Amino acid sequence: MTRQSLRLGMVGGGEGAFIGAVHRMAAALDGEWRVTAGAFSTDSGRNARTGAQLGLDPQRTYDTFDAMLAGEASLPADDRIDAIAVVTPNHLHAPMAIAALQAGFHVFCEKPIAMSDAEAQAIAETVQATGRRFALAFTYSGYPLIEEARTRIAQGDLGAIRLVQVEYLQGWLSQPIDIQGNKQAEWRTDPARAGLGGCLGDIGTHAFQLAEHVSGLLVQAVSADLTIHVPGRRLDDDVSALLRFEGGARGTLKASQVAAGEENGLKLRIHGERGGLEWAQMEPNTLTLRWLDRPSEIVRAGGPGLQDSAMRLLRTPAGHPEGYIEAFANLYRSFAAAIRGEESTWVPGVPDGLRTMKFVEAVIANAASGRKWTSIDPGESE
Amino acid sequence: MTRQSLRLGMVGGGEGAFIGAVHRMAAALDGEWRVTAGAFSTDSGRNARTGAQLGLDPQRTYDTFDAMLAGEASLPADDRIDAIAVVTPNHLHAPMAIAALQAGFHVFCEKPIAMSDAEAQAIAETVQATGRRFALAFTYSGYPLIEEARTRIAQGDLGAIRLVQVEYLQGWLSQPIDIQGNKQAEWRTDPARAGLGGCLGDIGTHAFQLAEHVSGLLVQAVSADLTIHVPGRRLDDDVSALLRFEGGARGTLKASQVAAGEENGLKLRIHGERGGLEWAQMEPNTLTLRWLDRPSEIVRAGGPGLQDSAMRLLRTPAGHPEGYIEAFANLYRSFAAAIRGEESTWVPGVPDGLRTMKFVEAVIANAASGRKWTSIDPGESE
Amino acid sequence: MTRQSLRLGMVGGGEGAFIGAVHRMAAALDGEWRVTAGAFSTDSGRNARTGAQLGLDPQRTYDTFDAMLAGEASLPADDRIDAIAVVTPNHLHAPMAIAALQAGFHVFCEKPIAMSDAEAQAIAETVQATGRRFALAFTYSGYPLIEEARTRIAQGDLGAIRLVQVEYLQGWLSQPIDIQGNKQAEWRTDPARAGLGGCLGDIGTHAFQLAEHVSGLLVQAVSADLTIHVPGRRLDDDVSALLRFEGGARGTLKASQVAAGEENGLKLRIHGERGGLEWAQMEPNTLTLRWLDRPSEIVRAGGPGLQDSAMRLLRTPAGHPEGYIEAFANLYRSFAAAIRGEESTWVPGVPDGLRTMKFVEAVIANAASGRKWTSIDPGESE
Amino acid sequence: MTRQSLRLGMVGGGEGAFIGAVHRMAAALDGEWRVTAGAFSTDSGRNARTGAQLGLDPQRTYDTFDAMLAGEASLPADDRIDAIAVVTPNHLHAPMAIAALQAGFHVFCEKPIAMSDAEAQAIAETVQATGRRFALAFTYSGYPLIEEARTRIAQGDLGAIRLVQVEYLQGWLSQPIDIQGNKQAEWRTDPARAGLGGCLGDIGTHAFQLAEHVSGLLVQAVSADLTIHVPGRRLDDDVSALLRFEGGARGTLKASQVAAGEENGLKLRIHGERGGLEWAQMEPNTLTLRWLDRPSEIVRAGGPGLQDSAMRLLRTPAGHPEGYIEAFANLYRSFAAAIRGEESTWVPGVPDGLRTMKFVEAVIANAASGRKWTSIDPGESE
Repeated sequence: MTRQSLRLGMVGGGEGAFIGAVHRMAAALDGEWRVTAGAFSTDSGRNARTGAQLGLDPQRTYDTFDAMLAGEASLPADDRIDAIAVVTPNHLHAPMAIAALQAGFHVFCEKPIAMSDAEAQAIAETVQATGRRFALAFTYSGYPLIEEARTRIAQGDLGAIRLVQVEYLQGWLSQPIDIQGNKQAEWRTDPARAGLGGCLGDIGTHAFQLAEHVSGLLVQAVSADLTIHVPGRRLDDDVSALLRFEGGARGTLKASQVAAGEENGLKLRIHGERGGLEWAQMEPNTLTLRWLDRPSEIVRAGGPGLQDSAMRLLRTPAGHPEGYIEAFANLYRSFAAAIRGEESTWVPGVPDGLRTMKFVEAVIANAASGRKWTSIDPGESE
Repeated sequence: MTRQSLRLGMVGGGEGAFIGAVHRMAAALDGEWRVTAGAFSTDSGRNARTGAQLGLDPQRTYDTFDAMLAGEASLPADDRIDAIAVVTPNHLHAPMAIAALQAGFHVFCEKPIAMSDAEAQAIAETVQATGRRFALAFTYSGYPLIEEARTRIAQGDLGAIRLVQVEYLQGWLSQPIDIQGNKQAEWRTDPARAGLGGCLGDIGTHAFQLAEHVSGLLVQAVSADLTIHVPGRRLDDDVSALLRFEGGARGTLKASQVAAGEENGLKLRIHGERGGLEWAQMEPNTLTLRWLDRPSEIVRAGGPGLQDSAMRLLRTPAGHPEGYIEAFANLYRSFAAAIRGEESTWVPGVPDGLRTMKFVEAVIANAASGRKWTSIDPGESE
Repeated sequence: MTRQSLRLGMVGGGEGAFIGAVHRMAAALDGEWRVTAGAFSTDSGRNARTGAQLGLDPQRTYDTFDAMLAGEASLPADDRIDAIAVVTPNHLHAPMAIAALQAGFHVFCEKPIAMSDAEAQAIAETVQATGRRFALAFTYSGYPLIEEARTRIAQGDLGAIRLVQVEYLQGWLSQPIDIQGNKQAEWRTDPARAGLGGCLGDIGTHAFQLAEHVSGLLVQAVSADLTIHVPGRRLDDDVSALLRFEGGARGTLKASQVAAGEENGLKLRIHGERGGLEWAQMEPNTLTLRWLDRPSEIVRAGGPGLQDSAMRLLRTPAGHPEGYIEAFANLYRSFAAAIRGEESTWVPGVPDGLRTMKFVEAVIANAASGRKWTSIDPGESE
Repeated sequence: MTRQSLRLGMVGGGEGAFIGAVHRMAAALDGEWRVTAGAFSTDSGRNARTGAQLGLDPQRTYDTFDAMLAGEASLPADDRIDAIAVVTPNHLHAPMAIAALQAGFHVFCEKPIAMSDAEAQAIAETVQATGRRFALAFTYSGYPLIEEARTRIAQGDLGAIRLVQVEYLQGWLSQPIDIQGNKQAEWRTDPARAGLGGCLGDIGTHAFQLAEHVSGLLVQAVSADLTIHVPGRRLDDDVSALLRFEGGARGTLKASQVAAGEENGLKLRIHGERGGLEWAQMEPNTLTLRWLDRPSEIVRAGGPGLQDSAMRLLRTPAGHPEGYIEAFANLYRSFAAAIRGEESTWVPGVPDGLRTMKFVEAVIANAASGRKWTSIDPGESE
């Protein structure tokens, strides 16, 4: 039988928005999704231009998110959208995701999941109540070599884990561009739209999610230093934290957006009793494994020795580099498979959203206190 | 006005074929193309399954290439395919490309362009006669940092060019898998389907094309050693060559498919009077510039100092790695723009096809002789 | 006039001891020093064999340190040793250094300087009182590219410093080899001989010294997590710390001896308003400079753009790698120049010893408390 | 019994000469040698200053090489020098080496061994006749990881060897500094003092020696392109060659001194049936092993999996980088052991000298001809 693409609606992501375009490319790459409807911008001209540029039926370029929900719900089941991608500023994630779920649509939501742990809990409950799928754009966990790392640790190759070091260094906020008119920078440093954490919420959450996801361990307590380096900025642009994991592993987490000259330096290192591993997002097709008793190994995307779980996330043979869009597309591909009821690989979702909200709240509480450690409530989600 | 995707037909590329799937992903990435018709396989079941998997109208999954030409030509202009992707074994490239052009379709052809210089000339003449577009899948020239390198040399940053070193190392034919049943290996080492050159035609041509494209210089003469390392193999699996360029630059070209343990190691280094550059396909987002009088520079995809010509080939900010599929998509995107009559970036085509055929013929002639140098006819195409 | 080598006595460093042999090679490299006397081991046979192996006059291979002090003091000035290298376990550093200084000898002492801040203060006072030179083996600050980094920051190339990240990862104590008979491991994990800190004192101090030395900034407060991962071990084998520097810079320090598979991974990264730098001890001839507004630069030992202060620490042209022994030899060469009253480059000494002792004490105090921050007394030495 | 250093005389290497100073550091590092006599310069002031700087007895700073031979021969055996280091321009290597051998001294000679194959043969005969030791400064073969590579291949880890790629890229002659007064550049490009080959003799010989030494295979024939890129220069500054080895392996050799921006880029790659290896002089403590059927391995100086033969050439634990001087010192240390009649590791000598002279002559003959291949006479030395 002829396989049809799933239909995706999008809220946010008007022309010029970085992350909306990435969602569209990621969704398109494997032919599993087609953008069919959208409410891309509250600027009606920009909204219309985006829809036209994407080849949408003008009827399905909606003026508002609510209009999209209503309009699509009124279409026949085999025509209306299957899912909605929420790619707005942070403060709209939770209310829109909840409304979309309640209207019967699956949701692929940008991170952070919400502005607070309470909002995240509300999403969790709505997912539970509606039975709809909810995916969260922790894109970096879509990389094949991250899956390799996770699998290796899960099967005990490194022995019991002792050290987790994660860092995420960017430099783009080294100057006060948020105060000087850069739109991306402006909303990401505005507490009303970004949330309680600046750098912490924007990229610290990526680092935290990756650390827990790959190590397979929950962080129990955090000690943190949260800083605003650029005068006049309203949210932190730099965070350093010590982490204590269940089982005794110790961690460090460093995230900064004022590491001048750095691009998108997400790096993870984990050591266990018998060896360690290292992965860096900017050269994502390599995983270095170091051993106590034999030479280091370079495990490569598509190369010999790669675990099956990682191989499934690749599209090309060894030596043909896959990157950020492919990692993102892995999430969309698996999200589609889950919706279709087919075998699917893991997709980040509600549990990751809840954990990262708890982390953000714990860091903020700790940084404002004189106490060494603040617990992160394990919650019920894991 | 709503922008419509262009419609692509495909010949070859049935399920399981590596390069067909890559063409489809590359075409889909930017939403510029939609695969609408195909003659994917001479095995009718495989052909039908591929069409269904791609969501094609079953009427447009054709049993044969000729049927596709006829069927599509009979459709209204605003429905029929705009272009055909030729992704068959090598011996079919030229006849199919010529037939497609003559039937009024643009062509995106896998490399090598043909089995001989004479065939390539016939394509050139057909393109000339029909006025249709012809793109050739020298994918690696679609990488943004290759464009950076080309631009830097063209604007004289390195001074007059003296040295060109290009290499392309693979290891996948280290064992006699062609004789033992691997289908990819089998046809690529069969002179009737692959052409005169084995490794030479398959990857030596990529290396040669990249060297001329980036240096902006034509090779005038070649001295080569062509080897079959694996007993029983019918075509070369290893080539080494000395190159003499116009203007006095000297080059070396090394391509091998028996470099055991290597993946897809295409690397280019060029030195001029004032400095040199280095690029490696497996870490494609970095270009190293070395200078006589100041520290080496690392130019990065999306980073400061990148030339506008390279920046236009990127989809994401610095630090978000783009790879092989994105490079390929750059060719498809530009091919679409050219067909639409919009501003387009450079796409490899007939001239690259002609030069690489001349190179293959010169290497084979030289390797069979006791002469030091064999000229490569500059032809009329450049 | 013919230049004579200075004469060096050594206490500790009998055959088989790693660090004693390194001191001798470092001292010999430039011909500035000749080992002329020693009390290498309390095992008399081992002591004698070491002296004989080194070609010493048997009269000057002394049974005890005290005998060496007495014996050498009784020789004519142009024959007796000029300085003593103290390469014993940690608990002997301070008493021996003080005795040697008081006996009129200059001292080149292994780190840590002492077992406590109080002992370090006693050395400081003795140096002051005797006017003798005192060098401390913070070897890594002898690397040319560390001097490059220090100079660049001091002259403001990066702007005001915001972030300092230093790490020192080893894996050699991943297994309980200290408990199983490895001699190096045994004394380094014995509080009576190693001091209050295990990993903290052994390598954490190197990391701390390098961070302050290169940044030019003093740490004001520390928050730390000190761990024993291997059951039965008596001193920490892992430390993580947050640092607050004068002027507002934030830092992280990570040192571990249970990072299984790591060798000697000392790495320093510092970011300022306009850019950042990165240096790694295991590839020490490269300093990466990253910039907000232009491509990253790779400054190389001996290459163009290197500062004069770094160039002076090199012995060979660019591309001839110099390593650990050469860095060490830079300290011995400069120590000799200082003793001769010639122009000398910087050598780590008493101030570095005092700062690192204060750091160790602050980390231990903080880690044992529930307080977030513990101050590091700036002292009077800087 | 007290071990005495051997005594070294040096011809050439006056103050300011790069390679003389390197010989002295290499000889001094392990305490096996002491420079005791010299004829450092034909400029008597420079000669005297060098001797004084080195702390030599003024009687043993000789005005001429002949005076050194005579003066030292007249001293008692336990006082006179054991060996002579010949570090003059190339044209003096053979006559001085022969005279020194005939006067009863062992010789450590800079490369190239001579100006011609005939001169090299004369040295070979003199070594044979006198029974003295003769070491040749093919320094790069003193690196531990080169020994690792050689051992791995010799024991068959890679299977039969198919590909050898060696390159040596420098940029220091990119400008006509030889014509503009740089002394190093001047004599190295003067046929009367440098020999028949410029770049070919200076660094092409290093590349060739390393390729044969590590692969364990002799080159049978060469096809070469020899170029002068800088107008006015009298000797080649760039060479490219194809190599055919015994047993069917194919090779490429590239050496250039006009690769602007390169430092001292000697790199060796060898592939066999089952895997390949890669080593680069500028990061010499790493050997990469690539495999058909398992992940690449990074073998490290001092790390797990290192062969005993390589471990013996190291002085420090893993992660403490050793470099060029240490590699050089390995040759001096082994040369001393051989003289003392102790167990010694391999040292390059007459056979390497003969092979490289034959290579130089074959390249020059081939490059001047229109023939594809020129044989390299295997000689009797191997």
